[in-house]
Amino acid sequence: MKKSAINLQDKFTKFSKHWSPRVVAEMNDYQFKLAKIEGEFVWHDHKETDEVFVVIEGKMLIEFRDGKVELSEGEMYVVPKGVEHKPFAEKECKIMFIEPRGIANTGEAGGDLTAEEDVWI
Amino acid sequence: MKKSAINLQDKFTKFSKHWSPRVVAEMNDYQFKLAKIEGEFVWHDHKETDEVFVVIEGKMLIEFRDGKVELSEGEMYVVPKGVEHKPFAEKECKIMFIEPRGIANTGEAGGDLTAEEDVWI
Repeated sequence: MKKSAINLQDKFTKFSKHWSPRVVAEMNDYQFKLAKIEGEFVWHDHKETDEVFVVIEGKMLIEFRDGKVELSEGEMYVVPKGVEHKPFAEKECKIMFIEPRGIANTGEAGGDLTAEEDVWI
Repeated sequence: MKKSAINLQDKFTKFSKHWSPRVVAEMNDYQFKLAKIEGEFVWHDHKETDEVFVVIEGKMLIEFRDGKVELSEGEMYVVPKGVEHKPFAEKECKIMFIEPRGIANTGEAGGDLTAEEDVWI
C-alpha cells in the first residue's frame, strides 16, 4: 500500500493567508496544524488544554502577562492550559501547532481572527 | 517570569545513545520525545494509540507489513494505532516522536531495545 510522508514545507506552499491554520495530521484526538503568521494575534487562552508551538521557519514571539518567549526555527514551547498568551511575528513565520480537535485558535476571545477548521488530510 | 524555548538541536547534543528517547516536553497526557536512531528497530505496534514521527535531521524508513514510508528532514508521518511497524535508519537520524505518556517504545514486543522513560523537563 502506498504510504506518503507529510512534507511540511510542501504544505506551506499551498496557502498564503496569515493566521489561518491547516490541519495536516491527526493523532488520536489531537490535530497538527500549520500556520503562517505575521503581526499580532489576540490575547487568549485555552482553559481546557495545553498547546504546543513549533517554529518551522522564521521567528515568533509568544507574549504572556508575566513575560515572553522568543522561538526560532527548530524551537518549541508548551503553553500551559489556562495561560493567557499572544503570538506575534515581526516577519512572516511558519509554525506547526498541536492541540486537541475542536479548539478555537482564539480560545474564547473570538473576533475576526477566529479561523474555521480546515482539515487537509 | 523567565520562559525558555526548547531548542531541539541543543537537546540532541546532550545524548548519543541510539534508540534511547528523551522526553523534552509534555502537553496534557502526551509526551514529545527526541531520539537518535540508527540501524533496525524491532517490529511492534501500539494497540491503544497512534504515534507521530517527525524527522529533525537525516532520513528514516518506517516499514509496514504492507509497504513502507521514507521520511526526510521536515517530514512527518502518523502510524495508526494497532499497525505493526519497524523503524529503520541507514545512517544516524534525529527524530521527534509524540505519543501518550506511558507508552513503551517497543510496544508489547519487548527486548533489549525497550527503553526506560527518561524525562528531561
